Amino acid sequence: MSDIENALREISRGAEEIIPLEELKKKLESGRQLVIKLGMDPTAPDIHLGHTVILNKLRTFQKLGHKIVLIIGDFTASIGDPSGKNATRPELPREQIIENAKTYAEQAFKILDKDLTEIRYNSEWAEKLGAAGTIKLASKLTVARMLERDDFSKRFASKQPIAIHEFLYPLFQGYDSVAIKSDVELGGTDQKFNLLMGRELQKDAGMEPQCVLMMPLLVGLDGVVKMSKSKHNYIGVTEEPKEMFGKIMSISDDLMWSYYDLLSFKNVDEIKELKEKCISGGMNPRDAKIELGREIVARYHGEELANAAVEGFKSQFAKGALPDDIKEVTVNSASVPNLLKDAGLCETTSEAIRMLKQSAVKCDGKVITDKNAPVEKGTTAIWQVGKRRFAKVTVA
Amino acid sequence: MSDIENALREISRGAEEIIPLEELKKKLESGRQLVIKLGMDPTAPDIHLGHTVILNKLRTFQKLGHKIVLIIGDFTASIGDPSGKNATRPELPREQIIENAKTYAEQAFKILDKDLTEIRYNSEWAEKLGAAGTIKLASKLTVARMLERDDFSKRFASKQPIAIHEFLYPLFQGYDSVAIKSDVELGGTDQKFNLLMGRELQKDAGMEPQCVLMMPLLVGLDGVVKMSKSKHNYIGVTEEPKEMFGKIMSISDDLMWSYYDLLSFKNVDEIKELKEKCISGGMNPRDAKIELGREIVARYHGEELANAAVEGFKSQFAKGALPDDIKEVTVNSASVPNLLKDAGLCETTSEAIRMLKQSAVKCDGKVITDKNAPVEKGTTAIWQVGKRRFAKVTVA
Repeated sequence: MSDIENALREISRGAEEIIPLEELKKKLESGRQLVIKLGMDPTAPDIHLGHTVILNKLRTFQKLGHKIVLIIGDFTASIGDPSGKNATRPELPREQIIENAKTYAEQAFKILDKDLTEIRYNSEWAEKLGAAGTIKLASKLTVARMLERDDFSKRFASKQPIAIHEFLYPLFQGYDSVAIKSDVELGGTDQKFNLLMGRELQKDAGMEPQCVLMMPLLVGLDGVVKMSKSKHNYIGVTEEPKEMFGKIMSISDDLMWSYYDLLSFKNVDEIKELKEKCISGGMNPRDAKIELGREIVARYHGEELANAAVEGFKSQFAKGALPDDIKEVTVNSASVPNLLKDAGLCETTSEAIRMLKQSAVKCDGKVITDKNAPVEKGTTAIWQVGKRRFAKVTVA
Repeated sequence: MSDIENALREISRGAEEIIPLEELKKKLESGRQLVIKLGMDPTAPDIHLGHTVILNKLRTFQKLGHKIVLIIGDFTASIGDPSGKNATRPELPREQIIENAKTYAEQAFKILDKDLTEIRYNSEWAEKLGAAGTIKLASKLTVARMLERDDFSKRFASKQPIAIHEFLYPLFQGYDSVAIKSDVELGGTDQKFNLLMGRELQKDAGMEPQCVLMMPLLVGLDGVVKMSKSKHNYIGVTEEPKEMFGKIMSISDDLMWSYYDLLSFKNVDEIKELKEKCISGGMNPRDAKIELGREIVARYHGEELANAAVEGFKSQFAKGALPDDIKEVTVNSASVPNLLKDAGLCETTSEAIRMLKQSAVKCDGKVITDKNAPVEKGTTAIWQVGKRRFAKVTVA
């Protein structure tokens, strides 16, 4: 297999769509250093493993010697949604944007080589367009084409208002590709319209147009819907080693192989080998999962803490023992749901009530299901929620 | 009748619609000097009487002591239609725009008092908006609202492309009202959407919104369709006195009263008196028409030339004689249509052929209809086209 074919195999791994594959191949064959673009939303800097799928793909390009450019969309973020109708697009002060970009970059550099990554703020070229340049940019696309974008077409059909400036944002985002002369832009499948906009605007400017590589959305821990904060099925990249490792151990075997494809730094052949071993019975899938967990925890917390997380997990579950470092808390709660919340074992009393119903709560090893069970002052007990949350709770 | 009522009567004269009349009345009652806005299209500087309808209305406001602001839309004109699809919106170089504005102003000052008229170029404030300001401006209206505009809705329904920047132009035009804090904007009925945009944007900016006064489109000499160059039913304000006067004398009596309302500087009562005289038989409508012609020619060429035009007309038609100052030309034409064109009697050979067919061409008093009639070298004859075009033509 040629170097180019090998490169294409790693680049295509897990990808949902590459437009157009032939052009990408030609770009790779040209031998020059390609410019790989990723736009970052400076309104939400905290990333979870779902966001790292694309960063991993950037890493693949970086390992192949290409240049990564992270674009911070500070220009549009600083404007926000002037119509005030779109709560997901708040106006951000510039300091906040820079702070968010820094937070994002710190997390991204767990995956990317900092020295080989360029960070650009799009205000650098967007502001220079001026009013006249904005009008010219807006002339590049028709209203009908813009209304083809999935979210716009739905809103238009259901008579929900679309403010005219919303049509300008995708154009500014596409113009970023013209400004940095990108060869490839990465994004999620939900970004297809915007990604292709960059390609169109580059063609219009007489440039070699960028290719577009879309990655699928990572499925969350539940194995059903995409990973997101709002669905509580995510692993944040700043979560504690044990929590992170435990969450990875909780996923199904099927999901594990998808995570290997999208999250592991192992190459295609190594993953193939692991999978074959599991299928042939030469390896317990649980051990493959431990390997994946170790790799991911090590990425964000280092080898040592990763190994400790593995050992902690093994001793807790293999031996059925309580964890070594069980936390001790004193609460002043009048009911079991409040106690669970106050002790930090559940996020809310609603979650606590749900956990009780699911028989997922134990007190000194005894399952508790009654949310109205008495809470006696002056007592101390080991409370457990689910498999991994423990606390030694004293009621004051 | 109070002063305000009198003012409102002159302001409303001939107007198609005032939005809202009550607010205009309040503005007039406030006693302050109002700012009256008219946007000028710098792509077509040559004006005909149709364009002066609105200038006359501005004059009414000026006479009442209000401030007239003519806006030269140089900002958008200098951009033109960047998509290149709209031939009616060519990109104009700045020198051309300034030249056009000068030509327009010279013509407008035949009606308006130059010293009491302010001319503003909208690039002054539009460019300052920058890319960010343009986005904010675009947030003020929804796509659905913009598509309600008559021409957009038709194009959208028939799937003709509308480039996104076309949505920005009405917003910039409306923003002019915010920039100059206009109290009243004048325009044709075909401009309703754009005129109301200024009102909306002023409200949004927390200002007292402008009122909108729409004038009807002047009907052309044919009495059927609106006056326009392309319909050849117009009187240009730079036309020769005799041509101008003759054209006014050619309109119907009905149309004359509409022209009185829309073009004459006589006040409502004077016109009413004239009309009553004609109806009662105390005056020949032809004399009322001569008065109108004299007034309009005098406006553009002075009293003396106006009186000469009246006298010339009277002697030519009342006495059936040839005009005194018949022009002499020498041509080198091989056919009758070419001769008529070369002698300046017809604009094109197609017009000449049409005139021949309509029996509207005479040579030494004899009607000629055959376009292939011989043209003999060395001969001289009086050629006549229609009622008012004469030339003594020598064929070289």
